[in-house]
Amino acid sequence: MKLQVAIDRVKLDDAVRVANQLDSVVDIIEFGTSLVKDYGLLAIKHADLNLHHAQLLIDLKTIDEGPYEFKQGFAAGADILTVMGASSVDTIKKVYEIGEAQDKEMFIDMMGINQEQREQISTFNKAIYGIHHAVDEEHGFDAVKTVADFHQKFPEIARISVAGGINLEVAQELAQQGIVESVIVGSGIMKASNPVAAAQKFMEVMN
Amino acid sequence: MKLQVAIDRVKLDDAVRVANQLDSVVDIIEFGTSLVKDYGLLAIKHADLNLHHAQLLIDLKTIDEGPYEFKQGFAAGADILTVMGASSVDTIKKVYEIGEAQDKEMFIDMMGINQEQREQISTFNKAIYGIHHAVDEEHGFDAVKTVADFHQKFPEIARISVAGGINLEVAQELAQQGIVESVIVGSGIMKASNPVAAAQKFMEVMN
Repeated sequence: MKLQVAIDRVKLDDAVRVANQLDSVVDIIEFGTSLVKDYGLLAIKHADLNLHHAQLLIDLKTIDEGPYEFKQGFAAGADILTVMGASSVDTIKKVYEIGEAQDKEMFIDMMGINQEQREQISTFNKAIYGIHHAVDEEHGFDAVKTVADFHQKFPEIARISVAGGINLEVAQELAQQGIVESVIVGSGIMKASNPVAAAQKFMEVMN
Repeated sequence: MKLQVAIDRVKLDDAVRVANQLDSVVDIIEFGTSLVKDYGLLAIKHADLNLHHAQLLIDLKTIDEGPYEFKQGFAAGADILTVMGASSVDTIKKVYEIGEAQDKEMFIDMMGINQEQREQISTFNKAIYGIHHAVDEEHGFDAVKTVADFHQKFPEIARISVAGGINLEVAQELAQQGIVESVIVGSGIMKASNPVAAAQKFMEVMN
Protein backbone atom coordinates (compact mmCIF):
# COMPACT_ATOMS: atom_id res chain seq x y z
CA MET A 1 0.00 0.00 0.00
CA LYS A 2 1.34 3.39 -0.99
CA LEU A 3 1.50 6.49 1.17
CA GLN A 4 0.48 9.81 -0.35
CA VAL A 5 1.15 12.90 1.75
CA ALA A 6 -1.03 15.92 1.06
CA ILE A 7 0.59 19.35 1.38
CA ASP A 8 -1.95 22.12 1.64
CA ARG A 9 -2.53 25.67 2.91
CA VAL A 10 1.15 26.50 3.39
CA LYS A 11 3.47 28.87 1.56
CA LEU A 12 4.74 27.46 -1.72
CA ASP A 13 8.37 27.68 -0.56
CA ASP A 14 7.51 25.66 2.53
CA ALA A 15 5.59 23.14 0.44
CA VAL A 16 8.57 22.68 -1.86
CA ARG A 17 11.03 22.31 1.03
CA VAL A 18 8.99 19.68 2.87
CA ALA A 19 8.23 17.86 -0.42
CA ASN A 20 11.94 17.54 -1.15
CA GLN A 21 12.50 16.25 2.42
CA LEU A 22 9.71 13.67 2.10
CA ASP A 23 10.70 12.54 -1.39
CA SER A 24 12.73 9.52 -0.32
CA VAL A 25 10.23 8.42 2.35
CA VAL A 26 6.76 8.51 0.79
CA ASP A 27 5.38 7.20 -2.51
CA ILE A 28 3.34 10.17 -3.67
CA ILE A 29 3.63 13.87 -2.83
CA GLU A 30 0.35 15.72 -3.25
CA PHE A 31 0.30 19.43 -3.89
CA GLY A 32 -3.17 20.31 -2.66
CA THR A 33 -5.78 22.45 -4.35
CA SER A 34 -4.92 25.39 -2.12
CA LEU A 35 -1.39 25.52 -3.57
CA VAL A 36 -2.83 25.55 -7.10
CA LYS A 37 -5.42 28.21 -6.37
CA ASP A 38 -3.15 30.40 -4.22
CA TYR A 39 0.03 30.21 -6.30
CA GLY A 40 -0.92 28.75 -9.67
CA LEU A 41 0.49 25.98 -11.83
CA LEU A 42 3.07 28.25 -13.44
CA ALA A 43 4.65 28.98 -10.05
CA ILE A 44 4.64 25.28 -9.23
CA LYS A 45 6.27 24.56 -12.59
CA HIS A 46 9.10 26.97 -11.82
CA ALA A 47 9.56 26.00 -8.17
CA ASP A 48 12.66 24.11 -7.02
CA LEU A 49 10.84 20.85 -6.65
CA ASN A 50 13.38 18.11 -7.01
CA LEU A 51 11.71 14.73 -6.64
CA HIS A 52 13.76 11.60 -7.40
CA HIS A 53 11.62 8.90 -5.80
CA ALA A 54 8.08 10.06 -5.14
CA GLN A 55 5.46 10.80 -7.77
CA LEU A 56 3.92 14.27 -7.82
CA LEU A 57 0.13 14.47 -7.69
CA ILE A 58 -1.37 17.90 -8.20
CA ASP A 59 -4.90 18.09 -6.83
CA LEU A 60 -6.33 20.17 -9.68
CA LYS A 61 -9.92 19.11 -9.00
CA THR A 62 -10.74 19.68 -12.67
CA ILE A 63 -14.47 19.86 -13.28
CA ASP A 64 -14.56 21.47 -16.73
CA GLU A 65 -12.16 22.58 -19.45
CA GLY A 66 -10.39 19.34 -18.79
CA PRO A 67 -7.94 19.27 -21.74
CA TYR A 68 -6.60 22.76 -20.95
CA GLU A 69 -6.21 22.07 -17.23
CA PHE A 70 -4.60 18.67 -17.70
CA LYS A 71 -2.10 20.01 -20.24
CA GLN A 72 -1.17 22.80 -17.85
CA GLY A 73 -0.99 20.41 -14.90
CA PHE A 74 1.26 17.87 -16.59
CA ALA A 75 3.43 20.70 -17.94
CA ALA A 76 3.83 21.84 -14.32
CA GLY A 77 5.45 18.50 -13.54
CA ALA A 78 2.59 16.37 -12.25
CA ASP A 79 2.70 12.59 -12.68
CA ILE A 80 -0.93 12.34 -11.55
CA LEU A 81 -3.76 14.88 -11.84
CA THR A 82 -7.20 14.85 -10.28
CA VAL A 83 -10.56 15.27 -11.99
CA MET A 84 -13.89 15.43 -10.18
CA GLY A 85 -16.22 12.49 -10.66
CA ALA A 86 -18.97 15.11 -10.77
CA SER A 87 -17.59 16.37 -14.11
CA SER A 88 -19.33 15.52 -17.34
CA VAL A 89 -18.35 12.10 -18.67
CA ASP A 90 -16.93 13.93 -21.71
CA THR A 91 -14.52 15.85 -19.48
CA ILE A 92 -13.32 12.66 -17.80
CA LYS A 93 -12.88 10.85 -21.12
CA LYS A 94 -10.86 13.73 -22.55
CA VAL A 95 -8.48 14.04 -19.62
CA TYR A 96 -8.05 10.27 -19.44
CA GLU A 97 -6.90 10.30 -23.06
CA ILE A 98 -4.42 13.10 -22.33
CA GLY A 99 -3.01 11.11 -19.43
CA GLU A 100 -2.72 7.99 -21.56
CA ALA A 101 -1.01 9.90 -24.39
CA GLN A 102 1.58 11.34 -22.00
CA ASP A 103 1.99 8.09 -20.04
CA LYS A 104 0.72 9.86 -16.94
CA GLU A 105 -2.14 9.17 -14.59
CA MET A 106 -5.67 10.31 -13.81
CA PHE A 107 -7.15 10.27 -10.31
CA ILE A 108 -10.95 10.53 -10.17
CA ASP A 109 -12.20 12.28 -7.03
CA MET A 110 -15.42 10.43 -6.14
CA MET A 111 -16.57 13.00 -3.59
CA GLY A 112 -20.27 13.75 -3.46
CA ILE A 113 -21.48 11.73 -6.41
CA ASN A 114 -24.34 9.27 -6.41
CA GLN A 115 -24.47 5.62 -7.39
CA GLU A 116 -25.66 6.38 -10.93
CA GLN A 117 -22.77 8.78 -11.55
CA ARG A 118 -20.34 6.27 -10.07
CA GLU A 119 -21.53 3.59 -12.44
CA GLN A 120 -21.13 5.91 -15.42
CA ILE A 121 -17.47 6.55 -14.66
CA SER A 122 -16.32 3.19 -13.33
CA THR A 123 -14.82 2.03 -16.61
CA PHE A 124 -11.49 3.88 -16.79
CA ASN A 125 -9.41 0.84 -16.05
CA LYS A 126 -6.08 2.57 -15.42
CA ALA A 127 -7.53 5.40 -13.34
CA ILE A 128 -7.16 5.75 -9.59
CA TYR A 129 -10.53 6.17 -7.86
CA GLY A 130 -10.28 8.43 -4.80
CA ILE A 131 -12.77 8.04 -1.98
CA HIS A 132 -13.19 10.71 0.66
CA HIS A 133 -15.80 12.91 2.25
CA ALA A 134 -15.83 16.67 1.95
CA VAL A 135 -13.49 18.43 4.36
CA ASP A 136 -16.41 20.78 5.05
CA GLU A 137 -18.81 18.02 6.01
CA GLU A 138 -19.64 17.91 9.67
CA HIS A 139 -20.13 14.21 10.24
CA GLY A 140 -17.45 11.56 10.64
CA PHE A 141 -15.94 9.21 8.08
CA ASP A 142 -15.14 5.52 8.53
CA ALA A 143 -12.42 4.88 5.96
CA VAL A 144 -12.24 1.09 6.43
CA LYS A 145 -16.00 0.59 6.14
CA THR A 146 -16.33 3.04 3.22
CA VAL A 147 -13.60 1.21 1.30
CA ALA A 148 -15.22 -2.19 1.97
CA ASP A 149 -18.60 -0.90 0.74
CA PHE A 150 -17.08 0.68 -2.36
CA HIS A 151 -15.17 -2.49 -3.21
CA GLN A 152 -18.32 -4.58 -2.84
CA LYS A 153 -20.26 -2.30 -5.21
CA PHE A 154 -17.42 -1.96 -7.73
CA PRO A 155 -15.31 -5.13 -7.54
CA GLU A 156 -13.96 -4.39 -11.03
CA ILE A 157 -12.22 -1.18 -9.90
CA ALA A 158 -8.63 -2.17 -9.22
CA ARG A 159 -7.05 1.09 -8.11
CA ILE A 160 -8.60 2.75 -5.06
CA SER A 161 -7.25 5.54 -2.89
CA VAL A 162 -8.75 6.78 0.35
CA ALA A 163 -8.40 9.99 2.35
CA GLY A 164 -10.00 11.51 5.42
CA GLY A 165 -8.70 11.47 8.97
CA ILE A 166 -6.27 8.59 8.37
CA ASN A 167 -4.19 8.07 11.50
CA LEU A 168 -1.64 5.32 12.20
CA GLU A 169 -4.29 2.92 13.46
CA VAL A 170 -6.57 3.38 10.44
CA ALA A 171 -3.60 3.16 8.06
CA GLN A 172 -2.66 -0.18 9.60
CA GLU A 173 -6.24 -1.46 9.33
CA LEU A 174 -6.40 -0.40 5.68
CA ALA A 175 -3.13 -2.19 4.95
CA GLN A 176 -4.48 -5.36 6.58
CA GLN A 177 -7.76 -4.99 4.69
CA GLY A 178 -5.74 -5.10 1.45
CA ILE A 179 -8.15 -3.29 -0.86
CA VAL A 180 -6.76 0.19 -1.44
CA GLU A 181 -3.67 0.98 -3.49
CA SER A 182 -2.88 4.13 -1.53
CA VAL A 183 -3.87 6.15 1.51
CA ILE A 184 -3.70 9.91 1.67
CA VAL A 185 -2.51 11.55 4.87
CA GLY A 186 -2.52 15.29 5.35
CA SER A 187 -2.41 16.80 8.81
CA GLY A 188 -1.34 13.48 10.38
CA ILE A 189 2.04 14.12 8.76
CA MET A 190 2.12 17.80 7.91
CA LYS A 191 1.13 19.00 11.37
CA ALA A 192 3.64 16.75 13.14
CA SER A 193 6.65 18.51 14.62
CA ASN A 194 8.79 16.33 12.35
CA PRO A 195 6.90 15.44 9.13
CA VAL A 196 9.65 13.10 7.90
CA ALA A 197 9.60 11.07 11.11
CA ALA A 198 5.79 11.03 11.07
CA ALA A 199 5.79 9.77 7.47
CA GLN A 200 8.30 7.05 8.39
CA LYS A 201 5.97 5.84 11.17
CA PHE A 202 3.11 5.56 8.66
CA MET A 203 5.33 3.59 6.29
CA GLU A 204 6.27 1.23 9.14
CA VAL A 205 2.71 0.36 10.19
CA MET A 206 1.59 0.02 6.58
CA ASN A 207 4.26 -2.36 5.35
CA MET B 1 -30.03 42.36 -17.74
CA LYS B 2 -26.36 42.48 -16.83
CA LEU B 3 -23.44 41.55 -19.03
CA GLN B 4 -20.64 39.47 -17.57
CA VAL B 5 -17.55 39.04 -19.70
CA ALA B 6 -15.43 35.98 -19.01
CA ILE B 7 -11.68 36.34 -19.42
CA ASP B 8 -9.93 33.00 -19.67
CA ARG B 9 -6.81 31.26 -20.97
CA VAL B 10 -4.79 34.42 -21.55
CA LYS B 11 -1.73 35.81 -19.81
CA LEU B 12 -2.55 37.52 -16.54
CA ASP B 13 -1.14 40.84 -17.75
CA ASP B 14 -3.40 40.70 -20.80
CA ALA B 15 -6.39 39.77 -18.64
CA VAL B 16 -5.77 42.76 -16.40
CA ARG B 17 -5.33 45.16 -19.31
CA VAL B 18 -8.54 44.11 -21.07
CA ALA B 19 -10.45 44.07 -17.77
CA ASN B 20 -9.45 47.67 -17.11
CA GLN B 21 -10.57 48.57 -20.64
CA LEU B 22 -13.92 46.82 -20.24
CA ASP B 23 -14.57 48.19 -16.75
CA SER B 24 -16.76 51.10 -17.83
CA VAL B 25 -18.70 49.09 -20.42
CA VAL B 26 -19.75 45.82 -18.80
CA ASP B 27 -21.37 45.01 -15.45
CA ILE B 28 -19.26 42.11 -14.30
CA ILE B 29 -15.71 41.11 -15.20
CA GLU B 30 -15.06 37.41 -14.74
CA PHE B 31 -11.57 36.11 -14.15
CA GLY B 32 -11.97 32.53 -15.29
CA THR B 33 -10.78 29.37 -13.62
CA SER B 34 -7.77 29.16 -15.92
CA LEU B 35 -6.42 32.45 -14.52
CA VAL B 36 -6.81 31.14 -10.97
CA LYS B 37 -5.20 27.79 -11.68
CA ASP B 38 -2.42 29.16 -13.91
CA TYR B 39 -1.47 32.25 -11.88
CA GLY B 40 -3.10 31.90 -8.47
CA LEU B 41 -5.18 34.19 -6.31
CA LEU B 42 -2.13 35.85 -4.80
CA ALA B 43 -0.99 37.05 -8.22
CA ILE B 44 -4.50 38.31 -8.99
CA LYS B 45 -4.55 40.11 -5.64
CA HIS B 46 -1.33 41.93 -6.50
CA ALA B 47 -2.17 42.66 -10.14
CA ASP B 48 -2.91 46.20 -11.33
CA LEU B 49 -6.61 45.59 -11.62
CA ASN B 50 -8.32 48.92 -11.27
CA LEU B 51 -12.08 48.48 -11.55
CA HIS B 52 -14.32 51.47 -10.78
CA HIS B 53 -17.59 50.37 -12.31
CA ALA B 54 -17.73 46.63 -12.91
CA GLN B 55 -17.85 43.96 -10.26
CA LEU B 56 -15.13 41.32 -10.21
CA LEU B 57 -16.22 37.69 -10.27
CA ILE B 58 -13.50 35.11 -9.78
CA ASP B 59 -14.54 31.71 -11.08
CA LEU B 60 -13.01 29.72 -8.25
CA LYS B 61 -15.25 26.67 -8.82
CA THR B 62 -14.90 25.78 -5.16
CA ILE B 63 -15.99 22.21 -4.46
CA ASP B 64 -14.42 21.63 -1.05
CA GLU B 65 -12.51 23.55 1.62
CA GLY B 66 -14.98 26.32 0.97
CA PRO B 67 -14.16 28.66 3.85
CA TYR B 68 -10.45 28.73 3.00
CA GLU B 69 -11.02 29.29 -0.71
CA PHE B 70 -13.66 31.96 -0.23
CA LYS B 71 -11.50 33.88 2.24
CA GLN B 72 -8.62 33.78 -0.20
CA GLY B 73 -10.86 34.72 -3.13
CA PHE B 74 -12.45 37.72 -1.44
CA ALA B 75 -9.03 38.82 -0.18
CA ALA B 76 -7.89 38.78 -3.82
CA GLY B 77 -10.51 41.41 -4.60
CA ALA B 78 -13.52 39.43 -5.79
CA ASP B 79 -17.02 40.80 -5.30
CA ILE B 80 -18.51 37.46 -6.37
CA LEU B 81 -17.07 33.94 -6.05
CA THR B 82 -18.30 30.69 -7.54
CA VAL B 83 -19.00 27.43 -5.76
CA MET B 84 -20.02 24.23 -7.50
CA GLY B 85 -23.57 23.00 -6.94
CA ALA B 86 -22.03 19.53 -6.81
CA SER B 87 -20.30 20.46 -3.53
CA SER B 88 -21.63 19.16 -0.25
CA VAL B 89 -24.48 21.27 1.13
CA ASP B 90 -22.22 22.02 4.12
CA THR B 91 -19.65 23.60 1.80
CA ILE B 92 -22.27 25.81 0.15
CA LYS B 93 -23.75 26.87 3.49
CA LYS B 94 -20.33 27.81 4.82
CA VAL B 95 -19.29 29.90 1.84
CA TYR B 96 -22.69 31.58 1.70
CA GLU B 97 -22.19 32.71 5.29
CA ILE B 98 -18.75 34.07 4.47
CA GLY B 99 -20.20 36.05 1.57
CA GLU B 100 -23.00 37.40 3.75
CA ALA B 101 -20.56 38.41 6.51
CA GLN B 102 -18.39 40.32 4.03
CA ASP B 103 -21.35 41.78 2.11
CA LYS B 104 -20.17 39.93 -0.97
CA GLU B 105 -21.84 37.44 -3.25
CA MET B 106 -21.99 33.74 -3.97
CA PHE B 107 -22.59 32.30 -7.44
CA ILE B 108 -23.62 28.64 -7.51
CA ASP B 109 -22.48 26.82 -10.64
CA MET B 110 -25.31 24.39 -11.44
CA MET B 111 -23.34 22.41 -14.00
CA GLY B 112 -23.87 18.68 -14.06
CA ILE B 113 -26.13 18.25 -11.05
CA ASN B 114 -29.42 16.39 -10.96
CA GLN B 115 -32.88 17.51 -9.92
CA GLU B 116 -32.49 16.21 -6.36
CA GLN B 117 -29.25 18.13 -5.84
CA ARG B 118 -30.82 21.25 -7.33
CA GLU B 119 -33.69 21.07 -4.89
CA GLN B 120 -31.31 20.70 -1.96
CA ILE B 121 -29.48 23.91 -2.82
CA SER B 122 -32.28 26.11 -4.12
CA THR B 123 -32.80 27.97 -0.84
CA PHE B 124 -29.92 30.48 -0.79
CA ASN B 125 -32.09 33.47 -1.52
CA LYS B 126 -29.35 36.00 -2.25
CA ALA B 127 -27.23 33.64 -4.33
CA ILE B 128 -26.86 33.81 -8.09
CA TYR B 129 -27.63 30.48 -9.76
CA GLY B 130 -25.51 29.91 -12.84
CA ILE B 131 -26.74 27.64 -15.61
CA HIS B 132 -24.43 26.31 -18.31
CA HIS B 133 -23.29 23.11 -19.85
CA ALA B 134 -19.76 21.78 -19.60
CA VAL B 135 -17.36 23.33 -22.09
CA ASP B 136 -16.14 19.80 -22.74
CA GLU B 137 -19.57 18.42 -23.62
CA GLU B 138 -20.03 17.62 -27.25
CA HIS B 139 -23.69 18.40 -27.77
CA GLY B 140 -25.26 21.84 -28.17
CA PHE B 141 -26.92 24.10 -25.63
CA ASP B 142 -30.13 26.11 -26.04
CA ALA B 143 -29.79 28.93 -23.53
CA VAL B 144 -33.30 30.37 -23.93
CA LYS B 145 -35.02 27.02 -23.54
CA THR B 146 -32.77 25.92 -20.67
CA VAL B 147 -33.53 29.14 -18.78
CA ALA B 148 -37.28 28.74 -19.35
CA ASP B 149 -37.20 25.15 -18.08
CA PHE B 150 -35.12 26.09 -15.04
CA HIS B 151 -37.43 28.95 -14.17
CA GLN B 152 -40.47 26.72 -14.43
CA LYS B 153 -38.96 24.14 -12.08
CA PHE B 154 -37.62 26.74 -9.63
CA PRO B 155 -39.87 29.80 -9.81
CA GLU B 156 -38.66 30.86 -6.36
CA ILE B 157 -35.08 31.40 -7.58
CA ALA B 158 -34.80 35.10 -8.33
CA ARG B 159 -31.23 35.47 -9.50
CA ILE B 160 -30.25 33.40 -12.53
CA SER B 161 -27.21 33.69 -14.78
CA VAL B 162 -26.61 31.82 -18.01
CA ALA B 163 -23.53 31.03 -20.07
CA GLY B 164 -22.72 28.98 -23.13
CA GLY B 165 -22.38 30.15 -26.70
CA ILE B 166 -24.25 33.43 -26.11
CA ASN B 167 -24.09 35.51 -29.29
CA LEU B 168 -25.84 38.83 -29.98
CA GLU B 169 -29.02 37.13 -31.15
CA VAL B 170 -29.30 34.87 -28.09
CA ALA B 171 -28.46 37.79 -25.78
CA GLN B 172 -31.31 39.79 -27.28
CA GLU B 173 -33.72 36.85 -26.91
CA LEU B 174 -32.70 36.38 -23.28
CA ALA B 175 -33.25 40.08 -22.60
CA GLN B 176 -36.72 39.86 -24.14
CA GLN B 177 -37.45 36.68 -22.19
CA GLY B 178 -36.79 38.66 -19.01
CA ILE B 179 -35.85 35.83 -16.66
CA VAL B 180 -32.11 35.96 -16.17
CA GLU B 181 -30.28 38.62 -14.19
CA SER B 182 -27.10 38.26 -16.21
CA VAL B 183 -25.59 36.61 -19.27
CA ILE B 184 -22.01 35.49 -19.49
CA VAL B 185 -20.12 36.01 -22.74
CA GLY B 186 -16.61 34.73 -23.27
CA SER B 187 -15.23 34.28 -26.75
CA GLY B 188 -18.02 36.40 -28.29
CA ILE B 189 -16.24 39.39 -26.75
CA MET B 190 -12.74 38.22 -25.96
CA LYS B 191 -12.02 36.83 -29.42
CA ALA B 192 -13.32 39.92 -31.20
CA SER B 193 -10.66 42.12 -32.76
CA ASN B 194 -11.96 44.93 -30.51
CA PRO B 195 -13.36 43.51 -27.25
CA VAL B 196 -14.60 46.90 -26.02
CA ALA B 197 -16.60 47.49 -29.20
CA ALA B 198 -17.94 43.94 -29.08
CA ALA B 199 -19.04 44.42 -25.47
CA GLN B 200 -20.78 47.66 -26.40
CA LYS B 201 -22.73 45.85 -29.10
CA PHE B 202 -23.92 43.27 -26.56
CA MET B 203 -24.98 46.07 -24.20
CA GLU B 204 -26.95 47.70 -27.01
CA VAL B 205 -28.97 44.64 -27.98
CA MET B 206 -29.62 43.74 -24.33
CA ASN B 207 -30.93 47.09 -23.13
